[in-house]
Amino acid sequence: MKRILENISNLGMTLPECPQPVAAYIPACRCGSLIFVSGQLPSKEGKMPQGTVPNVVSIEEAYTAAGQCFMNGLAAALSVLKADESLRLVQMQGFVQCAPEFKEIPQVINGASELALKIFGAEGTHARTAVGVAALPKNAPVEIAFTYQVEKEGSPKFEGRYNWL
Amino acid sequence: MKRILENISNLGMTLPECPQPVAAYIPACRCGSLIFVSGQLPSKEGKMPQGTVPNVVSIEEAYTAAGQCFMNGLAAALSVLKADESLRLVQMQGFVQCAPEFKEIPQVINGASELALKIFGAEGTHARTAVGVAALPKNAPVEIAFTYQVEKEGSPKFEGRYNWL
Amino acid sequence: MKRILENISNLGMTLPECPQPVAAYIPACRCGSLIFVSGQLPSKEGKMPQGTVPNVVSIEEAYTAAGQCFMNGLAAALSVLKADESLRLVQMQGFVQCAPEFKEIPQVINGASELALKIFGAEGTHARTAVGVAALPKNAPVEIAFTYQVEKEGSPKFEGRYNWL
Repeated sequence: MKRILENISNLGMTLPECPQPVAAYIPACRCGSLIFVSGQLPSKEGKMPQGTVPNVVSIEEAYTAAGQCFMNGLAAALSVLKADESLRLVQMQGFVQCAPEFKEIPQVINGASELALKIFGAEGTHARTAVGVAALPKNAPVEIAFTYQVEKEGSPKFEGRYNWL
Repeated sequence: MKRILENISNLGMTLPECPQPVAAYIPACRCGSLIFVSGQLPSKEGKMPQGTVPNVVSIEEAYTAAGQCFMNGLAAALSVLKADESLRLVQMQGFVQCAPEFKEIPQVINGASELALKIFGAEGTHARTAVGVAALPKNAPVEIAFTYQVEKEGSPKFEGRYNWL
Repeated sequence: MKRILENISNLGMTLPECPQPVAAYIPACRCGSLIFVSGQLPSKEGKMPQGTVPNVVSIEEAYTAAGQCFMNGLAAALSVLKADESLRLVQMQGFVQCAPEFKEIPQVINGASELALKIFGAEGTHARTAVGVAALPKNAPVEIAFTYQVEKEGSPKFEGRYNWL
C-alpha cells in the first residue's frame, strides 16, 4: 500500500476520501484475492460534473471525470487492503452517458486507464470494457467499475502478462 | 444452503424455479469458489412487467421488479450449490431500461440490494454497478447480473469487509 | 490449447490475430486462474460493420458480428495461455448498439454463444448478460467481454456445472 500512496504523492495528487455509496451497497467487496469495486461516479469534494457527453460535458471534461472515477475507486479498494498488501488492477468497466451519435467512448475512459498506468506502472495494465449508455445515476457523465487483485507488497506476480508490454 | 432457505421462508417469500435462459447460455456458471449468475429478468411465474422506466413502468414497479431479478438470480446460484455450502453475495451489475432523462437508477436497483440484505444479512453486502440503458431483452424494465462466493455452511469468512459495516 | 486450435480448424475457421486495443489497455489480463478479456469489437482484417441494429445493421449481420467478437476475444485469451493449458468459458457480457425499440438482443449475442458451444462443447457453456446500449466505440453494432478459466489440458474440471447440461 505504501508504494501506491508514494506514487500518488509523487504525481502531486491526493487520494480522495473513500466514496459514500448512493444506495444500499458497499464501495468495495473483497473476495479471496479479488476486490470488486462498485461503479464509481466522478464526484470530488461533494461536486460532480453533470450531463451528457459531448453536448453538455466536453470530451476533455469527461476524460478528467474518468480520472476522478479512478481515484475514487482506488480509495475504495484501499479501504479493504491491509498495510502490507499491494494492488494490481485487472479489469475496468466504463460507461459513458452520451448522445447516440457519440462514438469516442474509449477516449473518455482513457482518462482512467492512463491514470492507472501513471500510478501503478506495469501493474496498472488492465482488460477493459467501454460502452455508451443513455443514463447514469445523478446525471453523471461517466461511471467506472474496477476489479483489483491483492498482492503481497514487494512481490508482484506477473504471470501471463501480455507479451508486448 | 439451509440457512438461506430458512431466511427466505421467514420473510414469507418463496424461492422461484430456476429461470430458463432465453438463449444459448446457462443460468449460473461456477468457477472455483465464484458463481457467475447470468443477467436476470424480472419474470415471475411466466409473467413480467415490460416497458421503459418511469413513463411505462413506475419507479415503484421497477423496484419490485429488481427484487424479482434478485430472487431469480438466487435460484440460479442455488442450482449449482451443494447442500453443505452457503453463499456470500459479492457483486451486482444492474441495468435499468429507462428514458435518457431518468437518473434515479440506484433507487430501482435498491429493490435487489435491499432484498439481498434482508435475506443474507452481512453476507449480502456487495459491490454494485448501476446504469441506465436504451433497451433490454423482452422489453424488461430491469436486468441484473450477480457474482456470488461459495462458503462452507456455518463458517463465513469476512476478510476485508468494509469497516463501517 | 492444442484441442481448441484443432476444433477451430475442424470447423473450417481461422483464428484471427490478437486484436489491438483501441486505447490504453490490454486485450486480456490474467489473474490467477481467471482471464479477463477486454470488450471486443467485431473487426475482421481491419474491417468492421458499423451502425445501429436493426435499421442499419440487420439482426443477421449483427449475429455474425457477435461471432467475430467471440473469435477476437478467443485470440486475446489464447495470447496469455501456455501451450499445456486449456480454457473454459465462464462468462460473457454483451452489448448491442441498437434502437430503443429493438428487444431481440439475446438473438444477436447468440452469435457468440453458439460459436462458443461449437468450439468448446460443454466447456463453452457460460453465464451471460445481454443489454442494448445507445453507443459503442467506433460505431460498432456489438461489443462483448469475456471471462475464461484456465485449466490444465486434458483435465477439465466440471464442478457444479448446471444439471440439465
